[in-house]
Amino acid sequence: VATTPSGDPTATGRLATDPQATAALLVEALPYIRRFRDKVVVVKYGGNALSDGAGGEGRALASFAEDVVLLRSVGVLPVVVHGGGPQIGDLMRRLGKESEFRDGLRVTDAETLDIARMVLVGKVNRDIVSAINVHGPLAVGLSGEDANLITAAAHSVELGYVGSVSEIDPTIVVRLVAEGLIPVLATIGADEAGQAYNINADTVAGAVAVALGAEKLVFLTDTEGLRADPADPSTLIRQAGAADLDALVAAGAASGGMAPKAEACADAVRAGVDRAHILDGRVPHALLLELFTDGGVGTMVVR
Amino acid sequence: VATTPSGDPTATGRLATDPQATAALLVEALPYIRRFRDKVVVVKYGGNALSDGAGGEGRALASFAEDVVLLRSVGVLPVVVHGGGPQIGDLMRRLGKESEFRDGLRVTDAETLDIARMVLVGKVNRDIVSAINVHGPLAVGLSGEDANLITAAAHSVELGYVGSVSEIDPTIVVRLVAEGLIPVLATIGADEAGQAYNINADTVAGAVAVALGAEKLVFLTDTEGLRADPADPSTLIRQAGAADLDALVAAGAASGGMAPKAEACADAVRAGVDRAHILDGRVPHALLLELFTDGGVGTMVVR
Amino acid sequence: VATTPSGDPTATGRLATDPQATAALLVEALPYIRRFRDKVVVVKYGGNALSDGAGGEGRALASFAEDVVLLRSVGVLPVVVHGGGPQIGDLMRRLGKESEFRDGLRVTDAETLDIARMVLVGKVNRDIVSAINVHGPLAVGLSGEDANLITAAAHSVELGYVGSVSEIDPTIVVRLVAEGLIPVLATIGADEAGQAYNINADTVAGAVAVALGAEKLVFLTDTEGLRADPADPSTLIRQAGAADLDALVAAGAASGGMAPKAEACADAVRAGVDRAHILDGRVPHALLLELFTDGGVGTMVVR
Amino acid sequence: VATTPSGDPTATGRLATDPQATAALLVEALPYIRRFRDKVVVVKYGGNALSDGAGGEGRALASFAEDVVLLRSVGVLPVVVHGGGPQIGDLMRRLGKESEFRDGLRVTDAETLDIARMVLVGKVNRDIVSAINVHGPLAVGLSGEDANLITAAAHSVELGYVGSVSEIDPTIVVRLVAEGLIPVLATIGADEAGQAYNINADTVAGAVAVALGAEKLVFLTDTEGLRADPADPSTLIRQAGAADLDALVAAGAASGGMAPKAEACADAVRAGVDRAHILDGRVPHALLLELFTDGGVGTMVVR
Amino acid sequence: VATTPSGDPTATGRLATDPQATAALLVEALPYIRRFRDKVVVVKYGGNALSDGAGGEGRALASFAEDVVLLRSVGVLPVVVHGGGPQIGDLMRRLGKESEFRDGLRVTDAETLDIARMVLVGKVNRDIVSAINVHGPLAVGLSGEDANLITAAAHSVELGYVGSVSEIDPTIVVRLVAEGLIPVLATIGADEAGQAYNINADTVAGAVAVALGAEKLVFLTDTEGLRADPADPSTLIRQAGAADLDALVAAGAASGGMAPKAEACADAVRAGVDRAHILDGRVPHALLLELFTDGGVGTMVVR
Amino acid sequence: VATTPSGDPTATGRLATDPQATAALLVEALPYIRRFRDKVVVVKYGGNALSDGAGGEGRALASFAEDVVLLRSVGVLPVVVHGGGPQIGDLMRRLGKESEFRDGLRVTDAETLDIARMVLVGKVNRDIVSAINVHGPLAVGLSGEDANLITAAAHSVELGYVGSVSEIDPTIVVRLVAEGLIPVLATIGADEAGQAYNINADTVAGAVAVALGAEKLVFLTDTEGLRADPADPSTLIRQAGAADLDALVAAGAASGGMAPKAEACADAVRAGVDRAHILDGRVPHALLLELFTDGGVGTMVVR
Repeated sequence: VATTPSGDPTATGRLATDPQATAALLVEALPYIRRFRDKVVVVKYGGNALSDGAGGEGRALASFAEDVVLLRSVGVLPVVVHGGGPQIGDLMRRLGKESEFRDGLRVTDAETLDIARMVLVGKVNRDIVSAINVHGPLAVGLSGEDANLITAAAHSVELGYVGSVSEIDPTIVVRLVAEGLIPVLATIGADEAGQAYNINADTVAGAVAVALGAEKLVFLTDTEGLRADPADPSTLIRQAGAADLDALVAAGAASGGMAPKAEACADAVRAGVDRAHILDGRVPHALLLELFTDGGVGTMVVR
Repeated sequence: VATTPSGDPTATGRLATDPQATAALLVEALPYIRRFRDKVVVVKYGGNALSDGAGGEGRALASFAEDVVLLRSVGVLPVVVHGGGPQIGDLMRRLGKESEFRDGLRVTDAETLDIARMVLVGKVNRDIVSAINVHGPLAVGLSGEDANLITAAAHSVELGYVGSVSEIDPTIVVRLVAEGLIPVLATIGADEAGQAYNINADTVAGAVAVALGAEKLVFLTDTEGLRADPADPSTLIRQAGAADLDALVAAGAASGGMAPKAEACADAVRAGVDRAHILDGRVPHALLLELFTDGGVGTMVVR
Repeated sequence: VATTPSGDPTATGRLATDPQATAALLVEALPYIRRFRDKVVVVKYGGNALSDGAGGEGRALASFAEDVVLLRSVGVLPVVVHGGGPQIGDLMRRLGKESEFRDGLRVTDAETLDIARMVLVGKVNRDIVSAINVHGPLAVGLSGEDANLITAAAHSVELGYVGSVSEIDPTIVVRLVAEGLIPVLATIGADEAGQAYNINADTVAGAVAVALGAEKLVFLTDTEGLRADPADPSTLIRQAGAADLDALVAAGAASGGMAPKAEACADAVRAGVDRAHILDGRVPHALLLELFTDGGVGTMVVR
Repeated sequence: VATTPSGDPTATGRLATDPQATAALLVEALPYIRRFRDKVVVVKYGGNALSDGAGGEGRALASFAEDVVLLRSVGVLPVVVHGGGPQIGDLMRRLGKESEFRDGLRVTDAETLDIARMVLVGKVNRDIVSAINVHGPLAVGLSGEDANLITAAAHSVELGYVGSVSEIDPTIVVRLVAEGLIPVLATIGADEAGQAYNINADTVAGAVAVALGAEKLVFLTDTEGLRADPADPSTLIRQAGAADLDALVAAGAASGGMAPKAEACADAVRAGVDRAHILDGRVPHALLLELFTDGGVGTMVVR
Repeated sequence: VATTPSGDPTATGRLATDPQATAALLVEALPYIRRFRDKVVVVKYGGNALSDGAGGEGRALASFAEDVVLLRSVGVLPVVVHGGGPQIGDLMRRLGKESEFRDGLRVTDAETLDIARMVLVGKVNRDIVSAINVHGPLAVGLSGEDANLITAAAHSVELGYVGSVSEIDPTIVVRLVAEGLIPVLATIGADEAGQAYNINADTVAGAVAVALGAEKLVFLTDTEGLRADPADPSTLIRQAGAADLDALVAAGAASGGMAPKAEACADAVRAGVDRAHILDGRVPHALLLELFTDGGVGTMVVR
Repeated sequence: VATTPSGDPTATGRLATDPQATAALLVEALPYIRRFRDKVVVVKYGGNALSDGAGGEGRALASFAEDVVLLRSVGVLPVVVHGGGPQIGDLMRRLGKESEFRDGLRVTDAETLDIARMVLVGKVNRDIVSAINVHGPLAVGLSGEDANLITAAAHSVELGYVGSVSEIDPTIVVRLVAEGLIPVLATIGADEAGQAYNINADTVAGAVAVALGAEKLVFLTDTEGLRADPADPSTLIRQAGAADLDALVAAGAASGGMAPKAEACADAVRAGVDRAHILDGRVPHALLLELFTDGGVGTMVVR
């Protein structure tokens, strides 16, 4: 007979001091857990998050992978979309090839495309899949070329093999999700003739969310969220509608990488996605906090 | 554009002060939620809890009903078993009939059985079903006579229609659970000839847990748990094995209503139920705290 | 080698005298048995039938239970609805509480409701379930509160907790029937807030038949059927349409307990039930004779 | 409003005189109907029955077809096997070909086989199928050559294409029965090389009953049943075991066409068929009386 | 270790001389095999093909049976319809009965119908079923009377029991095909009263193709195909539309047995059958060549 | 009306000259097509085939892709495994990193592994997937890290991240195949901690064939097959058993890249794969010729 608590001392200590707060949080979280069960949540994980310094990369990725696996464990259906701009730049430098940008997009000749594809599909995608699969046989890497997932077209002649999305065929993603797996998607697409293109990952994330009828689209970034004035942290926008985002983009407030995210959010909620979020991926477990508590993190976009 | 938080002030206030603690609790709770998904948990809800004074009854029952519904919402499969001794005594008094007890069991003639059945099936069971169904069409009341759920035999000649369990056929319970419903079970049984018997609810709860292959058996009582010395609160037992409980019962430490609970716990874990618990039902949301956190409440019985 | 008949003497004796009549009856009955297979038949069993004197009760109930089980054995899907007025009156008398009636309906305060619920759900329902289950694990008792089966509203302010049917959600009944079970329904309903009401069983039987898309609605009563002149047995009505019943009720010919039965029959056939019947439940096996032979018993209502 | 009975005058007249006898017969028959539901009953219908004189043929066949359809309508699964000896003899005579018999079996050269096949498959089988299908699209004619149903071997060299059963593959019969159809089987078989043989229909009926795991095997003949002394009607055998039949055959009591029937009955019950019967097919609705009443007709063979 | 080729000498010899031609044919054939998978092909096999002289009959039938089995083996769903005019004539002659024709149709009294039915169902159908079943338990013979497959009506009073098609109920054919079987259909039909009729097999083949939603309808004949001028082989028509056939028939170019074939082809493609063909059944494996190669044989009819 | 052939001139020309040879080939091929339906065939496609000079690469890959798609179209279930040694060497050279080999295996440090993974998963795999998907949404690229497909362990300390196969979990491959897709597998594996390894593709192909219970394992190489004397083309081995291969390897006859292929073939047939082949991938449509004709190409390994 043991008269000591059945749990471990730390946990019991916490509960002993505040079981009511714990119960209250459970009562708050359980309805969310029920609500998101069997619902698709598309999460865009940025290349920046993967390269933020010595050691940091590994920790941030491991924490993200844990959240994705926990979501899956309670029945949420996460689909991960990722970019990899910084990593593409690295390999180009190592190969002595210079990157040229126009309007923030990398001019992509055949060799650059080959490099981008190797980095996105053969490195970044692999790193994310591996981080998730430490927890079990869950993640499967996909490129937009697989099973005609992303049909692409050239974005403009001068950018070369930079593509825009012509069509998303989500069949393979739906199948893998139905099998209990977590698809991790590199944003290479192909046209009807089999020519590959590199596509902006924010745009793909939005289009995939729409094609899947996702409940939520979440961008994990390295900022707190969208600001009315990019230079002023006190102007963080907590909630906005699609039209608000259109105005911000038109006014130039969503500068740099924020513009495609803002546009993807606006397009997604207009096309039926219930909520879109731009979150601070640097907050540990930002995904869990957003999905399962009343309190919000970052910017929420509603219809 | 709203720059106020997306949640309500109170919640955000709490999160603002401690998002890390919230995230930690979610990371703690989610694996439990996954683990108990699609698992049967048999909960014995005592008659005492239903009659503890003016107003109190309603609040305790409502809180219990909320817990049961929250469990169901995240995929746990609760089965409720209830007693009703105090309520039977009430109606007997009103009908001018005296209760006679032998060894703590009520001598039950045909009229007493009729009264017990009306109270258990027609009143206590109905009150619990109604309290749950405020949240949706979830609960279905059952008596052990339905679809031959409980086959009973006379416990002893001098006690009349007090029964012991001969056999449990859990088919109807399994069917209702499979349909997403919450069975609420009054502990009347019948023998092959159709004669009804009143059976101790603690014993039935244990037998039903075994017949269903339940993951957990939980007794919600009006005490903190089992004590090594009934008179000394400091001797609360946190964890015990089946043999420990046998010894306690043999030594008379589990007196009064605790004896059948202790025996049911010991029998259940021996027959394959993973864990049995005697909890303090007066702690709000005791069920949630027990199932979904590391910390324990009351007495846990292991194999 | 036996040169005696393979059956028992009595049976063979009968057959020996009239095999052709026997064959003719089989040829007559088999198409009915085919026709009612997998069809729902709602049977209202009255409280009067349960309290018609010393010993008679048991025999009538046992004969009724046998018919219901035989119907089920050849694939008919019986659903039993019952009342219990006389039994409620009995318990009220024993508790020293006086019954007050207005327009034939019992004024029902909170205490009366509690008594009615205990009697209907905890006694009458149980007695019918037990009588059926002597033949196998077939019957399951239900109250209208289970799984939101009957949503009720107050009938009128001065009658208290006497309810009328707002909505029938037959899901639980459909499920049990699909599992091969025989639902036995006590006619207590609840409103959205969980407040219970006692509802006229004839009305509920009709509403349940409509909600289930039943093939037949049968009232087993203690009279021969409906009479054009209640005082004159020679005016027994063999067959009538819904409009005929409306006229009878308007003219006051359907007095006392007959009025709600007549109205329920008229409403049911108007809402798509193929046939409704008011039969003399005192004729042994009246149910079998009505369903499986050309000859009719009592009053048949057609569209 | 009609105060006349709902049924037709004749039926009501009968019921008016004896509703209790009618109810008693229903109570007797319903358990049999339940018991034989989804059970296979193999019925051998003899060629004699088809050729018993002017007009008689049509009536007997129509009555038999009605019984088979009624059985099917209440869920029994009838399989019909037929012969056609007299009809084969007819066509041979018309073609100027003489029949030669050895040990009661027709010597069968290639031409005789062609004639037998045309008569059995192209005439007798068609007549039975048509008689059944007057009641609905139920019967499907089969020859033992279809889907390798009957694999045959030569019975003896001197008899030519008279076959014995090597193997029954009941797959096609099982499939048709599962589709709700009534297979009608002509007893032509084929060997591995595709050579056809004519086989005794009594023997095939027994083998098919065994291969299907039939509940019953019924021979409809033009006699009252098996007699201990073929010449003495008072020695009709009501019930016998397999060993009894062996003895009768050995003693020569089962002469002529009775011998293969007796042997088939004995073999069938030994191989697991529950009951085998030799009935007088001239009694109208003999099949219904045998299956659905306590009284027996003809000879019953038990294990 | 063997340094000899793994195949047999002959085959390897052929491949050694031309592997590229072999590969080319496979590349040509595989898409056709894919395209006709799970598609119904109705093949009319003429009675003439069965009676073309000493020995020839067996070889032609065996070759046809092999083709049908090969088609089935790669997933095509063949349904065979056959006639038997010459064989009916034979038996009539043997029975001393004279055949009388009007407009190319045999006047059919009751005796002639009996003869036709015996020959078609009991002989020709059996011969085709046996030839196929040498390869496995695949073929099942059917008459239009089975399961109400063909409802017929009298074609004209003076022709007697010559029928035209009133309705095709293809349920039994669909079931057998779904079970992997090959239905072989004799073209006897029956009216509602069960009266049988003999129907032109070409007409039935077309109606069955339409009722089944067949992909192809193929007539195997003993000519090269349809000719613009029946007397001039050089006018063989390779491809035609429905209107072309109408014109040919109107002009009398499709004489004799070709007229009903031409009409059936025209009706079938008009009602949705993709292609109809009149092929020379004397070319070995004509069916395979037509279905699986680019080259055509005989006349193809398109919409 | 067209009197020209229905197919195109070329094809018809060929058929006109030899319809019998065409029919004979179909009769030969169809049983093979039936036999391999729904059977898994693992095809190892070598990196050499992808880099054999200007323009040649594209044509060989396109021809291979066409064969794979044709196989799939007739129900064969191809699974492609590929290497990419030459392509890894290319990128290393471009990055100024020297390759070091021990016993024919590339010493692989962390950077080399990154390069190998990018090339295999991000380039070679992509090229094959794209070539197949020109024909439809069929191919899906996989790495052994996906869904724990290949668990690897270090081959030896001095080789670094060169792995050997510890375990194959074919679940994801089975799922994709069941969905009608063609998995294309890059041979990177991971250990339990998520560390990646580069593994010999021949070895993986054999292990995958065994894990899938494949019918065939086919190595497409740039030689005619296995030779008893590597230097003497006349010693090409047509057929060998597993023991023969063991002897060849032991004797050093299977030198260079042939050794792991020979070992994989021997292991596969020992573990239940029906046949293993080493074919000359330079012969157009070698896969089709091997699977669907009697003649063999290259070396066949049997149990």
